[in-house]
Amino acid sequence: MPPDSTETKRRLLAAATEEFARYGLAGARVDRIAEAAGANKRLLYVYFGDKEQLFDRVVADRLGAMLAATPFDVRDLSGYAGALFDQVTADPALLRLITWQRLERPDPNPFETDTFRGRLADLGAAQRAGIVDSAVPAADLLAFVRALATAWAGASPALRALGAEPAGAADLADHRRAVVEAVRRLVTAPAGGGRPGGAPRTRRQARGTG
Amino acid sequence: MPPDSTETKRRLLAAATEEFARYGLAGARVDRIAEAAGANKRLLYVYFGDKEQLFDRVVADRLGAMLAATPFDVRDLSGYAGALFDQVTADPALLRLITWQRLERPDPNPFETDTFRGRLADLGAAQRAGIVDSAVPAADLLAFVRALATAWAGASPALRALGAEPAGAADLADHRRAVVEAVRRLVTAPAGGGRPGGAPRTRRQARGTG
Repeated sequence: MPPDSTETKRRLLAAATEEFARYGLAGARVDRIAEAAGANKRLLYVYFGDKEQLFDRVVADRLGAMLAATPFDVRDLSGYAGALFDQVTADPALLRLITWQRLERPDPNPFETDTFRGRLADLGAAQRAGIVDSAVPAADLLAFVRALATAWAGASPALRALGAEPAGAADLADHRRAVVEAVRRLVTAPAGGGRPGGAPRTRRQARGTG
Repeated sequence: MPPDSTETKRRLLAAATEEFARYGLAGARVDRIAEAAGANKRLLYVYFGDKEQLFDRVVADRLGAMLAATPFDVRDLSGYAGALFDQVTADPALLRLITWQRLERPDPNPFETDTFRGRLADLGAAQRAGIVDSAVPAADLLAFVRALATAWAGASPALRALGAEPAGAADLADHRRAVVEAVRRLVTAPAGGGRPGGAPRTRRQARGTG
């Protein structure tokens, strides 16, 4: 390959990230990506394969960076949620890419599968050891923590407008604090009907109010 | 209009719902919608306007049905979350439509705005009256309850595969129970460091563990 292939690849990936985040897989145009990167379209195919393969590569890169940047600590799930909140608010393209992926490329991503398998094992062990309350199964718990961390960034535009767009730093800090508090509650046995020390729940408690 | 216009409109809307849920706004093709409905494409334009207007109509119809089918009760937010969970699991097209809308049509939907405005007012009043714990602001609370109810249906495909797809009724019931429990915790002051009766939180509690 020519000596500048690394730089060309970097420019192509950056342009592809922007294009896919904006238009999704079906709506993205390879022509626009090559033009934005100032590169030849044929080089794009040589380096990354077809549009689907390029999409998978972009998502894998961003997911990898995201997963690596949010250390997962079963003793501090609130902190994990806060870090995830920071990521998706600082980088709106990230959540859009993930969302397009779920709609247009719904097969499980191998890298995500490996990462989540490890986290579920950690969570399960922490629940058995009484470190994390075990009222909610590990897979649901992980889904909930992630849903809470991305709830505001992914909320209905109508609700976001009513709750005031998190434009200012002060608003963002308030939303972040709410996420941290919500996750703290999720993993803590509630007062009254609670199960201190992870004691087995009764049928009544297990049913909750639903 | 001819006597069968109501039936033709119904078929066009049903075909449009399926097409938009599958391909989104940009990916949907008006030709395919007309063909699936066994109707003339020009009639579609006469009845519903362009593709964007048809998309807005489909989303408004489905959102309206969804919002009407989930009565909102500030005294039973777990029950509201459970009903929302039932809707999105029974009708996967609904969550896909909402998700496409956020990506491709991000302006606040007026019907949603009206509905959420009312719910936020109810929640705020319930918090001031001490009916709902006020540690989490109303807008965040509503976003969280909705995020928890849709967390499993909208989770990463990798996580869903690991947690076992909710194919069987037994699995679904387990996921639903987890949602109800999570919302119960969210709106209940936690044991230890809790604020019974809505007493002002200390700085330490407000920061949580994050």
